[in-house]
Amino acid sequence: MEYIKNYIEQHRERFLDELFGLIRIPSISSISDHKPDMLRAAEYWKKSLLEAGCDRAEVIPSQGNPVVFGEKVIDPALPTVLVYGHYDVMPVDPIELWKSPPFEPEVRDGRIYARGADDDKGQAFMHAKAFELMVRTNTLPTNVKFMIEGEEEVGSPNLPAWLDQHRDMLKADVILVSDTSLLGWDKPSITTGLRGLAYMEVEVTGPNKDLHSGLFGGAVANPANVLAKLIATLKDENERVTIPGFYDDVLELSAEERAEMAKAPFDVEAYKRSLEIGEISGETGYSTLERTGIRPSLDVNGIWGGYTGEGAKTVLPSKASAKISMRLVPNQDHHKIARLFEEHFLRIAPPTVKVKVTALHGGQGYVSPIDIPAYRAAARAVETTFGKRPIPVRSGGSIPIISTFEEKLGLKSILMGFGLESDAIHSPNENFPLDNFYRGIETIPYFYTYFLEYMQA
Amino acid sequence: MEYIKNYIEQHRERFLDELFGLIRIPSISSISDHKPDMLRAAEYWKKSLLEAGCDRAEVIPSQGNPVVFGEKVIDPALPTVLVYGHYDVMPVDPIELWKSPPFEPEVRDGRIYARGADDDKGQAFMHAKAFELMVRTNTLPTNVKFMIEGEEEVGSPNLPAWLDQHRDMLKADVILVSDTSLLGWDKPSITTGLRGLAYMEVEVTGPNKDLHSGLFGGAVANPANVLAKLIATLKDENERVTIPGFYDDVLELSAEERAEMAKAPFDVEAYKRSLEIGEISGETGYSTLERTGIRPSLDVNGIWGGYTGEGAKTVLPSKASAKISMRLVPNQDHHKIARLFEEHFLRIAPPTVKVKVTALHGGQGYVSPIDIPAYRAAARAVETTFGKRPIPVRSGGSIPIISTFEEKLGLKSILMGFGLESDAIHSPNENFPLDNFYRGIETIPYFYTYFLEYMQA
Repeated sequence: MEYIKNYIEQHRERFLDELFGLIRIPSISSISDHKPDMLRAAEYWKKSLLEAGCDRAEVIPSQGNPVVFGEKVIDPALPTVLVYGHYDVMPVDPIELWKSPPFEPEVRDGRIYARGADDDKGQAFMHAKAFELMVRTNTLPTNVKFMIEGEEEVGSPNLPAWLDQHRDMLKADVILVSDTSLLGWDKPSITTGLRGLAYMEVEVTGPNKDLHSGLFGGAVANPANVLAKLIATLKDENERVTIPGFYDDVLELSAEERAEMAKAPFDVEAYKRSLEIGEISGETGYSTLERTGIRPSLDVNGIWGGYTGEGAKTVLPSKASAKISMRLVPNQDHHKIARLFEEHFLRIAPPTVKVKVTALHGGQGYVSPIDIPAYRAAARAVETTFGKRPIPVRSGGSIPIISTFEEKLGLKSILMGFGLESDAIHSPNENFPLDNFYRGIETIPYFYTYFLEYMQA
Repeated sequence: MEYIKNYIEQHRERFLDELFGLIRIPSISSISDHKPDMLRAAEYWKKSLLEAGCDRAEVIPSQGNPVVFGEKVIDPALPTVLVYGHYDVMPVDPIELWKSPPFEPEVRDGRIYARGADDDKGQAFMHAKAFELMVRTNTLPTNVKFMIEGEEEVGSPNLPAWLDQHRDMLKADVILVSDTSLLGWDKPSITTGLRGLAYMEVEVTGPNKDLHSGLFGGAVANPANVLAKLIATLKDENERVTIPGFYDDVLELSAEERAEMAKAPFDVEAYKRSLEIGEISGETGYSTLERTGIRPSLDVNGIWGGYTGEGAKTVLPSKASAKISMRLVPNQDHHKIARLFEEHFLRIAPPTVKVKVTALHGGQGYVSPIDIPAYRAAARAVETTFGKRPIPVRSGGSIPIISTFEEKLGLKSILMGFGLESDAIHSPNENFPLDNFYRGIETIPYFYTYFLEYMQA
């Protein structure tokens, strides 16, 4: 349909300028100093939704950062698509590795470089612009609602309660989300499974103050050595998590299902090359795609303690800490896993130290069916613009709120993302190819058309 | 001798003011930004030595920070005491735990609070003031030389070459050092042994950039998990270091020697209480005093990697690092131990990561005899002012340069220190009791008198 390509071509630069305005707001949800930026980003979204053609848009308070809601109801009898996205972004450390400032978007080699360029400002904003396109060209086939939150990167702690409060307002037929990646530009895919997450922080305290390592070393338990030992025991020599009960609720896939998964294209040598690693690593008995797709994992996300500056300081630190998170697969409950972790960690800690364990956030895994109208519409839309049938894939990532949507609103979510693995989300030099941004805007209107068609069939 | 007490009483306030002037210079040797402060501290010492009565004082360049040299030769035929000290100090992290700014000395409850208050500005400056006292009261019994260096806290990397260059200038009969502690105000002691040190930094690199822990977690070796595992294996369940060859050169003490050591007063319950620890910890089969006095140890001094800020960031870090140091006992060679550590660490690292090991600094251990004139003079001087015979003790700390003095200059060092364990050297809120400062100044002149007496006997 030429009008789609034409509209995008005419408004190409403006779309980018508007996205850049959003990106320039450093809305890092995990750092409390950025509170005012959260409000600015929310207001920016409200304005964008009204300008794009919403009948109504509001910044609605929650117990945490507010949620932006917008809607255009063309006919209450028609289906309604609820677009979900988030305006918050991850922190930017280590800042020194960025080639351009993270909140000053820059286009280099056809990619937008900035924190949030993909996750999720770039991807969510495609929906605002595709919606504008449909409104201005009088081709919007269904009702549309937008729900853009500001705490996704910290696990959406306040969204569940907010959903309860606004159930009526959020009535819809499906939730549409762009916050995931394609297997590749030439390997389009739609994410049908997400891992859950249990994110913990542990603090090990030895002596009540930093000590001179010469005067005390060898006679007092060093919390950094103890922490290393505790972390080391959390996985065995087969890279299996040792927490008792950790695997109890994991659903093992059948041989047939695993054979089906093994058909997804995957080049382990290219994978190793792109990460510059000598060997891959993971749970014995599973492939790389299985390790991230259908198996839970445990990773240290951060570790710190003692003297970390230049040179040598002979200190025996008082404390050492780590952030440790576990990716979970569907059927594992993150509350239960957090509890098992805490009990285990406290049990294995020696009496020479004090240990504190805090659950920072969590979310359940999710599996989406591929035989519903919305999935079929998404698959056909992607096929229309990419020229290839998308592969349904289980992603290793987590969008904890997705399973909550099903629980609270009774709605399935379609994860039609347009990112690439090379977008470096959560990393320095996050980026989003311009081609993906515009291709996303082009694909979304087809989704609406096909969705209405399948819903009315 | 009343004139000593009288002189100190008359100049009490000025002594403190002059020390404070030195303390206010933030001469942190491990942080290169402080280079100009190193020169300022050296010049301050030069001026102090000239004002105190040196015939000559100079700031003499080295390959690193300069060394301050001063001397007063009253008669070339008389013995010469070479005073060694250092004008550099440790970093001040974690700065937020200081109750007063580290470089603004403040007297609270009879203690000077500041970085360097004890180690080693306060202790070294006692020698400048005791020297002034002897000059002004015409009681200086021997020749005196001062050598105050600026790189002790980073392992004196350039002093050995400097010693070679200035051997003639440094000719003396003994080296006198105040950079150690008393067992307690009521338990005077003189340090007769020091541990050596091998201080390493390790860096573990996994993927070439920080990754999203959901998309990659479980399939790529996490360098922070790997580092934890490597550190964990460096000590066994008996807290013995597992590096092959580590204990080869350790001299085991005889049962008699250990029985003698066991007579030193030590209250394990008070020790635990003062550190607020539930249990002590260390190598099986040795007491706490043995663990720090005659046994080597291995401690993580710092560890860092990944996201260490507020909240949760789901990153699989590219790198994780640690500073790991080993305290060594006499006869262990720090070069050999550093090499064994490096070889071992590289050998145990899995092929899923790259590992870099750097030796940051090192020094040999030292044992001083207790039957030489200088030790006997020091013991009698301490007994004169404290009223109790000092106990000879092996300290767990390291002053790496002490063994180098013996090797390069053929001189023994007497470690007549006046600090207390509660002085929190290398920690926040370092302090030095005024009583110790003035008692040190009072004790030093007796050392000179008795030293001449024993040398001429």
